[in-house]
Amino acid sequence: MNPNLRAALVAYREVIGDEQVVVEREVLTRYETATFHTDNKIVAVLRPSSVEQVQQCMAISTQYSVATYPISTGKNVGYGSRVPSADNCIILELKRLNRILEFNEDLAYVSLEPGVTQQQLYDFLKEKKSKLWMDATGSFLDHSIIGNIAERGFGHTPFADHFNNVGGMDVVLANGKLLHTGFGRFGNAKAAGVYRWGVGPYLDGLFAQSNLGIITRVTLWLMPAPEYCQNFFFSVEKSDDLSEVIELLRPLRLDGTIQSAMHIGNDYKVISSIRRYPWEESQGEVPLSKELMAKLAEKWDFGAWNASGSLYGSKQEVALARKRIKKHLQGRVKKLRFLDEGLLRLAEKLQKPYHWLTGVNLPEMLKLLKPIFGLTTGVPTGEMIASTYWRKKQAAPANPDPDRDRCGLMWLAPVAPTKGQYAQEIWSIVESTMLKYAFEPAVSITLITERAMDCVVSISYDRDVAGEDERAQSCHDEMLNKLTASGYYPYRLGIHSMGGLPASEDAYIELMTALNGVWNPNKIMAPSRYPFK
Amino acid sequence: MNPNLRAALVAYREVIGDEQVVVEREVLTRYETATFHTDNKIVAVLRPSSVEQVQQCMAISTQYSVATYPISTGKNVGYGSRVPSADNCIILELKRLNRILEFNEDLAYVSLEPGVTQQQLYDFLKEKKSKLWMDATGSFLDHSIIGNIAERGFGHTPFADHFNNVGGMDVVLANGKLLHTGFGRFGNAKAAGVYRWGVGPYLDGLFAQSNLGIITRVTLWLMPAPEYCQNFFFSVEKSDDLSEVIELLRPLRLDGTIQSAMHIGNDYKVISSIRRYPWEESQGEVPLSKELMAKLAEKWDFGAWNASGSLYGSKQEVALARKRIKKHLQGRVKKLRFLDEGLLRLAEKLQKPYHWLTGVNLPEMLKLLKPIFGLTTGVPTGEMIASTYWRKKQAAPANPDPDRDRCGLMWLAPVAPTKGQYAQEIWSIVESTMLKYAFEPAVSITLITERAMDCVVSISYDRDVAGEDERAQSCHDEMLNKLTASGYYPYRLGIHSMGGLPASEDAYIELMTALNGVWNPNKIMAPSRYPFK
Repeated sequence: MNPNLRAALVAYREVIGDEQVVVEREVLTRYETATFHTDNKIVAVLRPSSVEQVQQCMAISTQYSVATYPISTGKNVGYGSRVPSADNCIILELKRLNRILEFNEDLAYVSLEPGVTQQQLYDFLKEKKSKLWMDATGSFLDHSIIGNIAERGFGHTPFADHFNNVGGMDVVLANGKLLHTGFGRFGNAKAAGVYRWGVGPYLDGLFAQSNLGIITRVTLWLMPAPEYCQNFFFSVEKSDDLSEVIELLRPLRLDGTIQSAMHIGNDYKVISSIRRYPWEESQGEVPLSKELMAKLAEKWDFGAWNASGSLYGSKQEVALARKRIKKHLQGRVKKLRFLDEGLLRLAEKLQKPYHWLTGVNLPEMLKLLKPIFGLTTGVPTGEMIASTYWRKKQAAPANPDPDRDRCGLMWLAPVAPTKGQYAQEIWSIVESTMLKYAFEPAVSITLITERAMDCVVSISYDRDVAGEDERAQSCHDEMLNKLTASGYYPYRLGIHSMGGLPASEDAYIELMTALNGVWNPNKIMAPSRYPFK
Repeated sequence: MNPNLRAALVAYREVIGDEQVVVEREVLTRYETATFHTDNKIVAVLRPSSVEQVQQCMAISTQYSVATYPISTGKNVGYGSRVPSADNCIILELKRLNRILEFNEDLAYVSLEPGVTQQQLYDFLKEKKSKLWMDATGSFLDHSIIGNIAERGFGHTPFADHFNNVGGMDVVLANGKLLHTGFGRFGNAKAAGVYRWGVGPYLDGLFAQSNLGIITRVTLWLMPAPEYCQNFFFSVEKSDDLSEVIELLRPLRLDGTIQSAMHIGNDYKVISSIRRYPWEESQGEVPLSKELMAKLAEKWDFGAWNASGSLYGSKQEVALARKRIKKHLQGRVKKLRFLDEGLLRLAEKLQKPYHWLTGVNLPEMLKLLKPIFGLTTGVPTGEMIASTYWRKKQAAPANPDPDRDRCGLMWLAPVAPTKGQYAQEIWSIVESTMLKYAFEPAVSITLITERAMDCVVSISYDRDVAGEDERAQSCHDEMLNKLTASGYYPYRLGIHSMGGLPASEDAYIELMTALNGVWNPNKIMAPSRYPFK
């Protein structure tokens, strides 16, 4: 151990206590484990419990030049989990900073620390009998809200674009100093948190997908619960119909008929949400054959592409939007169906097919529909984590942990303008590349904003099968190269893709390098995280 | 003239041509003139016509250490017009970069240069028979859209928060290098302009209200024109009713019943929009007496506070929103009235009172209502510039130019969370301070976002009256001090207020100074613009 690191560890222990500086090899190994192969080793995990301790730890890291990688609750599944983007880092885990610092029902916001999980915020709002909704995700119940925001993750309601609902931040810089963004830099500013721009440059953007600071507080805007919410679903039969689906939906998303982030999953995506790989029926063959997929699709009544969206407002407003959607989509898509809480409750009670559920495996469908409906109304769910076990030979246990159970998962999420031709081109690259590597091309397209869609591609595999880790990484890399060559760049990177972008063509690298030189002078903060390319 | 400057001028002339480097004293004096007293002199005006020329000019400025102040069309009225924030600058005027570079009807955006004016974009959309609306302002028809965005100006439709509708930028740095924000740094990225965050840190925020770069291109999102738009108006009688008005409106703004930036103007604001100061009736006395205001208010039928908002959607959707607004406001406010294009046309044709216009000076009211309705449907207007002549002894000419005509105008625009008590407290500070200095406390409160309001205070005076410039500045400074001491910070600064903020309490100054050291190394870009406090 180099003497600098030794001295730093002594200093960290003084600040946060011996038991919060973890160096046991067994624990470190767990932190070094993701849902794909990783090489980066860590030397310790620090567990501060307050902003002051985070500041002190960073001051120590700077003093002794110790590379330090902050994580919140470390649930960055599919993108690297808790594993740092560089070798030989210390992990600074912010799980213990888990306070909800402020709550304002009138102005519809909450202010929280990085250890606050989505389940915690959900429970808090419930306990307060709040009429506000959070926007939830289908990832872990204990994933950090700030961690998700820092990666610009998204959800399902009109507040789906999480970073877009940040009213202000506190940030600890590499040198340990604290910064308040927006009006927050003036201690008495009343509008801090509600008016994000503040006065002067707007800085929040610097701290998402970057290594320029550690977010220790976010003011998050919440959504006033509408009187009524209704989901709608439809599908199309052929994978070539994707282009038309996107063209049909764009105007509805742009004009506000659909106010939330719609999702369009393909057959591979749907089946992996419902069940594990059909090892028996396929007699162990991969990838899933077209014939078997056709059978599964018939059984569960899904199409090549399956869309789900949600309408919000008064009952009458939703009725108007529904009418417009029907008029626009009827005859052009299959099985346009609407679902609300009442119908869901009824279906659950009866457990027998409704007209719109005719022929469907109802209990199985409800298992999928209930959490989807929940997500569109701000209820987090951990149900979908089971899908990371898609290619495993055993079912997901009651407490799924894809890192521990050697589930293979890599995500790649290119963004495009919401145009049919782009969706179709992305799909064509993804399908051909993934099938070539014998993986199922599971894709979910999210109309994240009025104009843009995120196409989330899952490479799911079994890390216990020899050679799969390498094959998945090769498949990922080839796909990323093809996508960026065609103009489709990912909205987010993982440690498997941090080095995968082509070089940019302007002053960006020079500028960001200089910026980093100022804000992260001895490069100790999260090295190689979102490198400047 | 110092030899560096002399050499720089030679170099500028080589790049952009002799006739585009203006040094005539008479012209320079015009650029040094705002709607309040300014001391800063300029040494030349450069008029490049392309991004390449802007880059070359900045490279020269850096080489010869010439302080350079970029302006777009220079219509920053009430905040300093074209006058730089420091003495002895060269002005880099971007008026000739006036191309609309890209237009996409399907994805609802336009990409433009800093010389593009709001009238130009409006005409362009009309010519294209576009079904998209821009968001317009009541400032000059020839004000620059990018200039307004760079100051985070706002308008009247659901797209009122202009900076919030920027999809990406091109920026020339102090050293002349070009940066594309978001995905734009990858030359082939299809989502550049539609997905603003890009991948990695989001940088756009750095270039609004700053001196870190010159914005030479913005992709601006436009609003799909709704089927129907209806304005609504109401007033309250007592100035103390403001608090209740804000409390009534907040939930409607938060839940999306009101999707646009509502405006609430007080009696002083309304009267100064309708006519000049009543010099005759007041026998030359200032400020306007309560008695005379009461008479004027009766004649034109306005209240102590007068709100105007707008509803958008299908006719049926607007009807639902209208019903909700009626239910929520009726009995609590006076004269709740609704106005749409049909009614406006009819009223114009008949020129006689409608029920809702009973007793009102109809031609005068229409003069005010028509441009307001226009603004809520994306039609720019120059009509409101006349109000800058409020305290002048002569009426505004056909081609109003407040700088030239020595109109006095200073703006101060504190932000607060949308709570009645805050509005009332701001109003109390503004009223007492302005009356003390014998100015009319004209205030317009804009519910700019779901949670925040901008309170725009106008100090209007006549620069031809001896001592008024000084008195206005003192009034402004005292008001700003009181407001910030109470926690109300302005959303924007002018050159009359650049030095007026208290020091911040965290790492901000240190950080921004370092940032500036990197991006603006010899401090030649817009010195003293949004200083780091």
